[in-house]
Amino acid sequence: MYKRDLVSITDYSLDELEDLFKLADDIEEHPRRYKSSCNNLKLATLFYEPSTRTRLSHESAMIELGGNVIGFSDAKASSASKGETVSDTMKVMSCFADIIAIRHNLEGTAMVAAEASSVPVINAGDGGHSHPTQTLADLYTIRKNFGRLNNLKIGFCGDLKYGRTVHSLIEALLRYENVEFVLIAPEELALPKGLKNLITDSGAKYEEVSSLEDALPELDILYMTRIQKERFTDLAVYDRLAGVYVLDKEKMERAKEKMIVMHPLPRVDEISTDVDDDPRIQFFQQVMCGKIVRRALILDLIERGSKEPIKRYDDIDEAEVGETCKCSNPKCITHFERGLKMRFKQGKGGKLLCAYCDSKIVEE
Amino acid sequence: MYKRDLVSITDYSLDELEDLFKLADDIEEHPRRYKSSCNNLKLATLFYEPSTRTRLSHESAMIELGGNVIGFSDAKASSASKGETVSDTMKVMSCFADIIAIRHNLEGTAMVAAEASSVPVINAGDGGHSHPTQTLADLYTIRKNFGRLNNLKIGFCGDLKYGRTVHSLIEALLRYENVEFVLIAPEELALPKGLKNLITDSGAKYEEVSSLEDALPELDILYMTRIQKERFTDLAVYDRLAGVYVLDKEKMERAKEKMIVMHPLPRVDEISTDVDDDPRIQFFQQVMCGKIVRRALILDLIERGSKEPIKRYDDIDEAEVGETCKCSNPKCITHFERGLKMRFKQGKGGKLLCAYCDSKIVEE
Amino acid sequence: MYKRDLVSITDYSLDELEDLFKLADDIEEHPRRYKSSCNNLKLATLFYEPSTRTRLSHESAMIELGGNVIGFSDAKASSASKGETVSDTMKVMSCFADIIAIRHNLEGTAMVAAEASSVPVINAGDGGHSHPTQTLADLYTIRKNFGRLNNLKIGFCGDLKYGRTVHSLIEALLRYENVEFVLIAPEELALPKGLKNLITDSGAKYEEVSSLEDALPELDILYMTRIQKERFTDLAVYDRLAGVYVLDKEKMERAKEKMIVMHPLPRVDEISTDVDDDPRIQFFQQVMCGKIVRRALILDLIERGSKEPIKRYDDIDEAEVGETCKCSNPKCITHFERGLKMRFKQGKGGKLLCAYCDSKIVEE
Repeated sequence: MYKRDLVSITDYSLDELEDLFKLADDIEEHPRRYKSSCNNLKLATLFYEPSTRTRLSHESAMIELGGNVIGFSDAKASSASKGETVSDTMKVMSCFADIIAIRHNLEGTAMVAAEASSVPVINAGDGGHSHPTQTLADLYTIRKNFGRLNNLKIGFCGDLKYGRTVHSLIEALLRYENVEFVLIAPEELALPKGLKNLITDSGAKYEEVSSLEDALPELDILYMTRIQKERFTDLAVYDRLAGVYVLDKEKMERAKEKMIVMHPLPRVDEISTDVDDDPRIQFFQQVMCGKIVRRALILDLIERGSKEPIKRYDDIDEAEVGETCKCSNPKCITHFERGLKMRFKQGKGGKLLCAYCDSKIVEE
Repeated sequence: MYKRDLVSITDYSLDELEDLFKLADDIEEHPRRYKSSCNNLKLATLFYEPSTRTRLSHESAMIELGGNVIGFSDAKASSASKGETVSDTMKVMSCFADIIAIRHNLEGTAMVAAEASSVPVINAGDGGHSHPTQTLADLYTIRKNFGRLNNLKIGFCGDLKYGRTVHSLIEALLRYENVEFVLIAPEELALPKGLKNLITDSGAKYEEVSSLEDALPELDILYMTRIQKERFTDLAVYDRLAGVYVLDKEKMERAKEKMIVMHPLPRVDEISTDVDDDPRIQFFQQVMCGKIVRRALILDLIERGSKEPIKRYDDIDEAEVGETCKCSNPKCITHFERGLKMRFKQGKGGKLLCAYCDSKIVEE
Repeated sequence: MYKRDLVSITDYSLDELEDLFKLADDIEEHPRRYKSSCNNLKLATLFYEPSTRTRLSHESAMIELGGNVIGFSDAKASSASKGETVSDTMKVMSCFADIIAIRHNLEGTAMVAAEASSVPVINAGDGGHSHPTQTLADLYTIRKNFGRLNNLKIGFCGDLKYGRTVHSLIEALLRYENVEFVLIAPEELALPKGLKNLITDSGAKYEEVSSLEDALPELDILYMTRIQKERFTDLAVYDRLAGVYVLDKEKMERAKEKMIVMHPLPRVDEISTDVDDDPRIQFFQQVMCGKIVRRALILDLIERGSKEPIKRYDDIDEAEVGETCKCSNPKCITHFERGLKMRFKQGKGGKLLCAYCDSKIVEE
């Protein structure tokens, strides 16, 4: 068996995802059966940037399986400040832990970590690139509410440009049949063109609208997002946009009775607290679902492994590529990690992509 | 049963406190009986400002009951920096933990936390407002040394103006019979007038003196406090006052043989290290008592709950109050927490108080 | 029995070290036998400066023995910022933990901690002074690879001036027979004269060379070190020296087949990643050995204790010494800790040394 990791949601096939969700259901129904499953095992949470919710969700999940936790919650506490590579840190951590959850500000770091570590690695967020356990939580929440992941109309509202959780969930839902997307955002924060093409290419439909009120009555799911202050260099633009898409009691009256509202949290002003008691509000339930599905994930990674090694890059002759090519993404780990072998994958139309962060490769 | 919290020491009646202390005694005598009481349960320590002693005391207590710990020790590691309200954070944390200990710099935060959380909340200090587990530790230390909490003469020395632990302990002791207070402080750091009135109104006696030497021979308990540098805006005033009230070997000779010296720690210069071996010095024993009584508290909150919901505010018609009224305390959580419903309580003489931080309500 | 600590590697006799290594072997071979050895016990990791590897190595070791962990990873989270002495903090921590691992930036702190604590203390690094668990890890790695700790030729390469791990390992190996030292360093980073004298005085041999290539073929062990940027005040000197001693594939070809390469980690550029797959590269194995030997250390400190109190200072009449003498080391804890009794030991030729940090004593 090969070691298994969760670097990207596509590391799991649809069948494997379904097995994972069933395992999550089973743990939820019979917690006592699983309360010693990870006895004497250790999860390391290596958080190079703080994220209390994600970290504590993983830690709770491990503890509820009878396991233990070590780690750090801040880059300052790590050896990175002394110039250690992520690969070396992972080799060290593999001596201490049985499974690792890593969060890092640089994109593509999770793949570097997975390749260096001898124990399973969970990507708990690598910059703006990927955050697959959030996607697992989102999928599991939808499945729990609707009993299915196909035949749904889902609206995404707020920051669709930078919202990593939005991008990941769209990609994940495109693997299911007949999911329609309604994109509710100001022009400045519209979904990137690449993702819109991806929807169309997958044979799915999307529409772009600017009014939350108008879109609401049609939706099965409304996925709200925070407009993140830290994404803006011009705070004036932020101030203008922040208040635009706010969900309140009045708007909720227009929604279906069985519709649900999701949010990756933290929320700031985009959902008024006066709707919190509405049973359609499911974002705290979503947190609970996140913990439940992470229990299944940890158990699955530790116990099952993979029959085949996960293939994350294509065997492209590096000579063909040229020695002067590099990843176009300035936040990609490939620009910072010493001794890292560049990996490529074939994108659509033969375009060369960075296997770590999925960005385009450019010649210098 | 209702969920129980410890927001203020008055959340426990005198009978309930006595039960708690007896439980603490029992755990201390039979630790093995309790070593699995909290198996599979998690304490979350949410410390928005650092306090190693208080945090580790709670964590040790939980571990000694067989439980686990998650949390953070620093606001930076929390979602607060992303603009999340305390209420939302507590709802999230309720998904992860079975009991929560929170420390926050803003006054009144513990009540906000208790109202939002679905699991028991322990106030581990909310700004200058309240620190009831320290008071529990103090009461338990006194009870362990004297076998009683009434008929005592207790001297408070040092910073009686800002010393939160002093204020809380005085209020707690006023519930017991025949406790006399000797207030030993410079004029600049005298006990606030409100608290002096409270003593008198409760039918208890106090005297204010400026000499530690003169006061010592009469005391059953001397409660020393650190003059906290961080409370002063003018460091010259601090420098003048810091050295005034220092307990040393010579002064200890004037004290009763059965007298005890307490201190909330950390001490700086106010108690000379040359008295550390004196058996009357009880401040490290006080740390041990704090851990012991916290074991009882955690167990009590998780297992017993409350027959009645704790009533922390009066049903005052908000219209009566006027929409323009607000808490007079600029460090009160009510000025920072979005979506918070203002709560009032009736103070003495019908004066309106903020239910969160006990400060006066003012009209704008 | 007396409480035992590991302040310095010399706290253990050679026989005791051998027992410790045998215990480490036994735990490694039969982990199940030991998986509950520390049930219900707590290790406190008090890290006043961050060091992820060392902290997590201790924590992993404790958890693998069935124990629990509390602590902090950063001075900011401690009471030191409020002016508490190390001694007071240790007395408090003794109420919470059954064993303590402390790391501090000031030299001599571990001895202060050991004297104040009522539970065993492990020195996890006190400034540039001592880091005995690293030395344990190094010795155990050598013993595991060669089956012996005598009759070895070991080369030290890189920063031999400031490299604390180098100094400690040399001192430790001098207790074994027939160990030869090859010192490979630029003049600016040569081994301090005191240590070279110590080698000679112990009857051992050393040679100083400047070429890594030339030295390699003779060595049983090559101990590489990072040239630490943070040790330099003049960054130009750092830049010139950093790249000089780099181990790569070509150089490895000159080494013996049974030779091993060690490194205390983190490495930066001094070992090329292209040699990582060479079986002689043992620095990740060294991390594993560090965890294994720490399991034995924790168990030994908790269970065995010491028949005799460890004697760390001589009974020198302080009057003889004169009241105006002090430690010559400005980074020594004696200049910062209030209420600390100065301790001395007799160095070679009757020279007076600070018992805390081993530096010379000077008259003011």
